[in-house]
Amino acid sequence: MYIAVDVGGTQLRAALYPEEALEPLVKKSISTHAESEKPENRLLELIGDIWPAKGQVKKIAIGVAGLVNPKNGEVIFAPNIDGWLNLNLGNLVEKKFNTQTILGNDANLAALGEWKYGAGVGHHDLIYLTISTGIGGGIIVDGRLLVGARGIAGEVGHITVIPDGPMCGCGKRGHLEAVSSGTAIANYVTEEIEKGRKSFVTQTEHKITARMVSEAAANGDELALEAFEIAGRFLGRAIADLLHLFEPSIVVLGGGVTKAGDVLMVPVRKALAEGVFSPEYLNGFELGMAKLGDQVGLIGALALART
Amino acid sequence: MYIAVDVGGTQLRAALYPEEALEPLVKKSISTHAESEKPENRLLELIGDIWPAKGQVKKIAIGVAGLVNPKNGEVIFAPNIDGWLNLNLGNLVEKKFNTQTILGNDANLAALGEWKYGAGVGHHDLIYLTISTGIGGGIIVDGRLLVGARGIAGEVGHITVIPDGPMCGCGKRGHLEAVSSGTAIANYVTEEIEKGRKSFVTQTEHKITARMVSEAAANGDELALEAFEIAGRFLGRAIADLLHLFEPSIVVLGGGVTKAGDVLMVPVRKALAEGVFSPEYLNGFELGMAKLGDQVGLIGALALART
Repeated sequence: MYIAVDVGGTQLRAALYPEEALEPLVKKSISTHAESEKPENRLLELIGDIWPAKGQVKKIAIGVAGLVNPKNGEVIFAPNIDGWLNLNLGNLVEKKFNTQTILGNDANLAALGEWKYGAGVGHHDLIYLTISTGIGGGIIVDGRLLVGARGIAGEVGHITVIPDGPMCGCGKRGHLEAVSSGTAIANYVTEEIEKGRKSFVTQTEHKITARMVSEAAANGDELALEAFEIAGRFLGRAIADLLHLFEPSIVVLGGGVTKAGDVLMVPVRKALAEGVFSPEYLNGFELGMAKLGDQVGLIGALALART
Repeated sequence: MYIAVDVGGTQLRAALYPEEALEPLVKKSISTHAESEKPENRLLELIGDIWPAKGQVKKIAIGVAGLVNPKNGEVIFAPNIDGWLNLNLGNLVEKKFNTQTILGNDANLAALGEWKYGAGVGHHDLIYLTISTGIGGGIIVDGRLLVGARGIAGEVGHITVIPDGPMCGCGKRGHLEAVSSGTAIANYVTEEIEKGRKSFVTQTEHKITARMVSEAAANGDELALEAFEIAGRFLGRAIADLLHLFEPSIVVLGGGVTKAGDVLMVPVRKALAEGVFSPEYLNGFELGMAKLGDQVGLIGALALART
């Protein structure tokens, strides 16, 4: 059996999987943070809770939202998890359960999951992008996950698409995440309304979210459509750049923002077609949508455990 | 023995190498183009000319300035070589000499050469960039050359650094090559002078070249320094983006423009340091200069032959 763990800023999720199937034998979620208990201790308890009464656990694989070093099991920095800075989570879990434990960045593992069990089955060169609050991703090069010299490669959300552009969550400017993420879409609409633009979105009293912008766009709201057009255009251009670098046979898009559908995807496809410097890059190329949905975190960790 | 061939828009170069050393047994160059003879026929003759009188040639490896498919031996498109469009050069050579023949993009092979025999020895993750008339490159991921689904990956010169920026040689706008190549540096100075800016560079009657700009910059010319500062800044930012994607342990810079030295490299290093979103990317990272010089074309092809 294998244990897969998905560590997010809000939830810790763990599941016990059999040797081969994708259906977990047992699955459990708890909140990541709680008063007077460290997240790493909550995680150890969670794993203990789903540990099988009999049978052997071959490997534990953990996906973490943050910079991790898969080569030594260290969480270098997890921005949404209290106190996780240069924490060797791999050693901690491995010692407690006396079982081989491997770590990966959550979006890298999602790429692995979509490649082995989702939209990318059969491909050898794949890029996965998750467009959500932020933008993460993972890259498969000739049948192997790209991890880099110390395991922090594949940060697709942090390539520059507008020099000196909008501020990114990471503190730098003009990254893809600062232009095409859900946060970026909501920020754009908020700022334009503050400048005096009219929009359906103003009809609410809540803070503007990408979902609200998506609903307004579906109803033909001009500002909302513009926000998605900009996000989609720069996402399409970034994908063209990634094709020039990696020439994958498929790019898989996941994350909540892609649910907006055509208002995002039409400008993405247009910018991608215009952006490649040779049509060869689109010859046999597929732009696909993620298939694993909410399960991608656990299934990505499972894919890592099974490698 | 191995035969290495370097196909450029001006020169065809070929050399016969022994099993292990880097010193060729024989080496010959001819012009790529000639009246009433196709480049591919000139290439076949050139290989015939250096063929050993005795002993066995194990493999022929050919580097081509253009888009090539290393998986089937096809030159998809070579912009500077007459008539090379969807030409299966690999088959042509293999049949004529009855010897295994493999192709690669010239800059990709230069990356392989610098990695195996030059500045990148000992590294597993390397990016090579050649800054010349254009910008080419090659990427080593975990000890293997990144070729992509059909072999046209690694086009580092064609990532966008200024959206809708200066026109690139490829026909798209704002690529790294359109901003940081020798051509881009010369174009910038030419355009600024046409706008009325003063520069030492105007003192010549010839078309402005990057070398002239480099000499002016060495003498403190303000416009020339500005041209290198812009080229270096965007090159440094592009390298930061490449670190986020690939996290190599070394980036190797080659090509004539790098001979400008500090006027280019100071802004490159500054923009790189400012551009990475976590200092972790520079931890143990090396920005090195190419070591193989003019031999990189042949040695790159040799490195391919020996894999």
